[in-house]
Amino acid sequence: MSGNSFGLLYCVTSFGESHGPAYGGVVDGCPPGLALSAADLQRELDRRKPGSSRHVTQRRETDTVEILSGLYEGRTTGTAIGFLIRNEDQRSKDYSAIAEKFRPGHADYTYWQKYGIRDARGGGRASARETVVRVAAGAIAKKWLKERYGVVIRGYLAQLGSTRLKFESWDEVERNPFFSPDAAVVPQLEKFMDQLRESGDSCGARVNVVASGVPVGWGEPVYGRLDADIAGAMMSINAVKGVEIGAGFGAIEQKGSEHGDEMTPQGFVSNNNGGVLGGISSGQDVTVSIALKPTSSIRIARRTIDVRGNPTQVETTGRHDPCVGIRATPIAEAMLACVLADHALRHRAQCADVTPPTKVVNPKKIN
Amino acid sequence: MSGNSFGLLYCVTSFGESHGPAYGGVVDGCPPGLALSAADLQRELDRRKPGSSRHVTQRRETDTVEILSGLYEGRTTGTAIGFLIRNEDQRSKDYSAIAEKFRPGHADYTYWQKYGIRDARGGGRASARETVVRVAAGAIAKKWLKERYGVVIRGYLAQLGSTRLKFESWDEVERNPFFSPDAAVVPQLEKFMDQLRESGDSCGARVNVVASGVPVGWGEPVYGRLDADIAGAMMSINAVKGVEIGAGFGAIEQKGSEHGDEMTPQGFVSNNNGGVLGGISSGQDVTVSIALKPTSSIRIARRTIDVRGNPTQVETTGRHDPCVGIRATPIAEAMLACVLADHALRHRAQCADVTPPTKVVNPKKIN
Amino acid sequence: MSGNSFGLLYCVTSFGESHGPAYGGVVDGCPPGLALSAADLQRELDRRKPGSSRHVTQRRETDTVEILSGLYEGRTTGTAIGFLIRNEDQRSKDYSAIAEKFRPGHADYTYWQKYGIRDARGGGRASARETVVRVAAGAIAKKWLKERYGVVIRGYLAQLGSTRLKFESWDEVERNPFFSPDAAVVPQLEKFMDQLRESGDSCGARVNVVASGVPVGWGEPVYGRLDADIAGAMMSINAVKGVEIGAGFGAIEQKGSEHGDEMTPQGFVSNNNGGVLGGISSGQDVTVSIALKPTSSIRIARRTIDVRGNPTQVETTGRHDPCVGIRATPIAEAMLACVLADHALRHRAQCADVTPPTKVVNPKKIN
Amino acid sequence: MSGNSFGLLYCVTSFGESHGPAYGGVVDGCPPGLALSAADLQRELDRRKPGSSRHVTQRRETDTVEILSGLYEGRTTGTAIGFLIRNEDQRSKDYSAIAEKFRPGHADYTYWQKYGIRDARGGGRASARETVVRVAAGAIAKKWLKERYGVVIRGYLAQLGSTRLKFESWDEVERNPFFSPDAAVVPQLEKFMDQLRESGDSCGARVNVVASGVPVGWGEPVYGRLDADIAGAMMSINAVKGVEIGAGFGAIEQKGSEHGDEMTPQGFVSNNNGGVLGGISSGQDVTVSIALKPTSSIRIARRTIDVRGNPTQVETTGRHDPCVGIRATPIAEAMLACVLADHALRHRAQCADVTPPTKVVNPKKIN
Repeated sequence: MSGNSFGLLYCVTSFGESHGPAYGGVVDGCPPGLALSAADLQRELDRRKPGSSRHVTQRRETDTVEILSGLYEGRTTGTAIGFLIRNEDQRSKDYSAIAEKFRPGHADYTYWQKYGIRDARGGGRASARETVVRVAAGAIAKKWLKERYGVVIRGYLAQLGSTRLKFESWDEVERNPFFSPDAAVVPQLEKFMDQLRESGDSCGARVNVVASGVPVGWGEPVYGRLDADIAGAMMSINAVKGVEIGAGFGAIEQKGSEHGDEMTPQGFVSNNNGGVLGGISSGQDVTVSIALKPTSSIRIARRTIDVRGNPTQVETTGRHDPCVGIRATPIAEAMLACVLADHALRHRAQCADVTPPTKVVNPKKIN
Repeated sequence: MSGNSFGLLYCVTSFGESHGPAYGGVVDGCPPGLALSAADLQRELDRRKPGSSRHVTQRRETDTVEILSGLYEGRTTGTAIGFLIRNEDQRSKDYSAIAEKFRPGHADYTYWQKYGIRDARGGGRASARETVVRVAAGAIAKKWLKERYGVVIRGYLAQLGSTRLKFESWDEVERNPFFSPDAAVVPQLEKFMDQLRESGDSCGARVNVVASGVPVGWGEPVYGRLDADIAGAMMSINAVKGVEIGAGFGAIEQKGSEHGDEMTPQGFVSNNNGGVLGGISSGQDVTVSIALKPTSSIRIARRTIDVRGNPTQVETTGRHDPCVGIRATPIAEAMLACVLADHALRHRAQCADVTPPTKVVNPKKIN
Repeated sequence: MSGNSFGLLYCVTSFGESHGPAYGGVVDGCPPGLALSAADLQRELDRRKPGSSRHVTQRRETDTVEILSGLYEGRTTGTAIGFLIRNEDQRSKDYSAIAEKFRPGHADYTYWQKYGIRDARGGGRASARETVVRVAAGAIAKKWLKERYGVVIRGYLAQLGSTRLKFESWDEVERNPFFSPDAAVVPQLEKFMDQLRESGDSCGARVNVVASGVPVGWGEPVYGRLDADIAGAMMSINAVKGVEIGAGFGAIEQKGSEHGDEMTPQGFVSNNNGGVLGGISSGQDVTVSIALKPTSSIRIARRTIDVRGNPTQVETTGRHDPCVGIRATPIAEAMLACVLADHALRHRAQCADVTPPTKVVNPKKIN
Repeated sequence: MSGNSFGLLYCVTSFGESHGPAYGGVVDGCPPGLALSAADLQRELDRRKPGSSRHVTQRRETDTVEILSGLYEGRTTGTAIGFLIRNEDQRSKDYSAIAEKFRPGHADYTYWQKYGIRDARGGGRASARETVVRVAAGAIAKKWLKERYGVVIRGYLAQLGSTRLKFESWDEVERNPFFSPDAAVVPQLEKFMDQLRESGDSCGARVNVVASGVPVGWGEPVYGRLDADIAGAMMSINAVKGVEIGAGFGAIEQKGSEHGDEMTPQGFVSNNNGGVLGGISSGQDVTVSIALKPTSSIRIARRTIDVRGNPTQVETTGRHDPCVGIRATPIAEAMLACVLADHALRHRAQCADVTPPTKVVNPKKIN
């Protein structure tokens, strides 16, 4: 398995650079017979799209996706699904000034040292624009999980800088450019972002993702655990520095008598474990939380070195998201969807003949 | 790649159950010519061993490891290294009472539902005793990384319940049963653990792990990132609910002008990124922090259901660690070592011919 | 996936050397609930065992297998199945004379050059004794395939040196030490082998393997084809130099009007494709044929070089099979079983929801 | 690893169907710094191209390849190389008549049964046109192997129907449309093909491929053997029914005293093992031979069933190669190149620090 692929059975392969001709991907292992069209992918891509509000990068991309294979008469055939998203707005001139310098917080220095060659235009392969491939691949996984198992995967912005957002409703999430679950806080977020943009600085964010309806039994102990694969997938998203499942770091200060989720015939009475026990889904909501670092591209001048090792300064004046976390919600959902689809397939491969012996009326958390 | 294996080139496979005859593992891909003996593995296993203080499980195991293959005249031959650790103290009778109930916070319910069959003795495959395999495999990786690249991997207890530990010195870590880097706090920890044990409850913990001397260039963007593989490996450890790299969740409240690690010819001036930029090691310390949930096996009675779905209660009276985090330090080190060894091999496979073009005097954080 | 593992979902990992303490293996991915005991593995191991007739190596090994994990109350639990076969008759002194020389046809030279270190005792890792692991792993696969799908996997000796054997009956195969399907030819084979042994030389062989009852649909085009995986698995057996599926090399001289297997409502009218079309099983018998080279260890002196590059001679006087092909039948069966089990799991992962639309009364070859 | 990907470190992923918009592929793991352009891929694609003589399919395709990623200023960057080959001449109407029938020897029936849905246009995913992806991916591998290690990979037609071709010279191979190494036999081949085409029938072929200059040491025993991976890769090519390494099936009738390749300080004195000993390259030429079945699409009417299971007949009148083996030479070369590149990378990952201890003046066969 190469570095640009992930998933054992629902396998996603990605290629493309920020200023090359196109991004593209291959989804292999999707079950046959799923009704699918480019519109299904486009819907998710549009949620991630740049230029959708003044708070995100003003790069102009339609992110139009073309499906090149794996479909016949509107249904998946079980063969590899190839798709392409052409780049449209590559202003290479924007980046010429920084080709010789390593931007702090960026992958410039590490790519240069690893490969001895670097496509500096817009971050090349390290650009967060690569996440279009994840979102497209995740759209297919989402659709299949929903239709086959009733699994629903949704995310929201949980924190922007130091502002923690209350979870009010899923409906609200899609109504504002922040994926905020709380309408009331949106004006405050807008004001904060305007000030941030003006200051030339950037900030971090927290995004929460929840998968509901996941059946009990997905995940392969001991290394191929569901939560392990989720953690790996989330940490592979650009700018992510932390991942939590369930109570996460809050579990440190919990007592065992508080943390362990009790069960009753009516279901679990809490969900500190975030829907995963021993690496296997428990039937409760799978709850994941990720930390995204502040955008590294800022207008404020910063110390660095150039490719010859001499000290210099760099300030980034291109079109950048002042908070990459704002557009991260669909990306995190997509990664969760891909991991779940992979484990759905893996589970039924090994355990297709198992009749789960215990009848639990409602294996979900009691409200 | 099956669920009981991990690593692409430095590949670890594990088997064994808590009350079966033995645990064992296979390390495949270790470079040939490394001086190695069972004592190298034993040293690390002894650090993890139960019964080493009154604060951990009193199960009596020598954890004696036998190497079965892959060595010739004291050196690795490049072939698969098989090893075995016999179980000695399996008191199956201890567990008979709970075979019919699902212990809250444990994997009992999920294994039962997934596989339709469950080895309830001591948690079976879900027992944290499986980590002996990780520690043994990690010992080999550690030795090779140290000898070949000068990489040093060390961990310590950073928080126990609500007590945050100061980092005083690496030397102190090996001198107390908590892997505490601060001698002064040890009496307080002992008192806390005594009270906890008496109360029949358990608590969570935070463990930090640091790899020093990692060369720049390890890690494969975009999915096979070094940090992604570290996150997956850490989350696969029993009881882990959260993983951070570098600033981790603290990055949410940072500004970009604070987070992005500036560079000078003398090196980086901070290490918020935890030694990984764009998924590739930067040459700085790789810093990882994990959250471990409180032990699920506690003496306090808890509500649950039995295998027929009827409500009942369970209290666990066996020999358990009141805080699994206390013995987790060598385990987390081992997982980090395995991931780094894997990426060391992956990097030189692809980039063996690259001469890193930039001479940076000291690619480490300036003190 | 490391070099000592194979299979994506039914995954086999192997370790051990000819004169080390033991061989062992791990089977991961086996479905839960399969009734299994060491006796199931032992039965197949006994078919491969050395010393069973004067025509094979006189090394004395009981090949007693111990299962170390993955079973509970006589059934597989779905966790990794570890097993061990201790070496008993390692006469290291036999090999001291050849440690400094490269035996023609053996892996001595290539291991030495690849790894810079070589366990010369009995061929070390390159010994054909490693096939005990394959046979044990295959025994589990065979049992599951038989119980779950009614698949029966059988092989026989099809050619010994220049003697081609007629296929008379499956029953006969297990009644003679050659796995000959023809009782009448056995005395001739015995005489031939006696002469061969006396001459100090060795000969090659052909083994045919057939899997009956394989459902239509197993195999993943285009690279993970069933026949591709079979070919890889067969060629990985020591001494195998050729693999055929169906008509094999005979297809070169066939016309399309002869080769393409016609279909009728009663089934296929021929099986030139060997049960695989487009990489997917067709429901017909999967037929595989392999060529095994003559044993490289012979008493006749041969030219070679020593580890310093000087010319010398080598003759091998140890205990060797004069024809490795004689004991190869259970090994080839085991490899086919493992590949089929893997693809059975892979198929139902992706296509569990497919109802094959065409009703073919009998998708097998008409007699 | 999904069914449409192969290779562990030099990893090729493929998508596309005969009558879809395009074929495409992703090569991941290519070392950075290799000078590469679309022309390098085009050269090999042109060798495989349809319509290049009257003896192959008259489908009109320029097979123009576009590289979409992984290059910067004419050199590989070490990131995934995506490429696209648009289909131009898809006459879907040609195939409407056969959409309801299963063509003997084709994958129609097995795809239909496996997936429950089938793209019948030109064979869909099962079309041999998929080999464009292999050839493009192989072109990159070939170039790197040549520049980095001096490895040269060449193939030729060794048998056409019952006509065995003499190997006269590599130069001749590229001068005729059959990849015949013997100029003298070409008129006879042309006459044979004209008659074959006229008869509406097809024939099989044998193709030999040779890799020269492969260093000693590539290949991972015991399952990841070089020859095992070559066999798997070759058998994954459409229409291949047999694979041989070195003496292949001829080894059955050899004696050990003939087969085992003796060594002298001047090199090996024969190459019966085909450049692989114990699964590891020996430094001799790697020699591979494959059998290709006769084209299944023929004008002669053949018995079959339709999708409802009723008996019918089918004759194929489209544009087909009367012998798929004629264009198979570049495809087989490509597959060998990909496997060798993969093992070159795998070898140096594990054994980069090994200094091969034996100085053999010329590890090649003495002429």
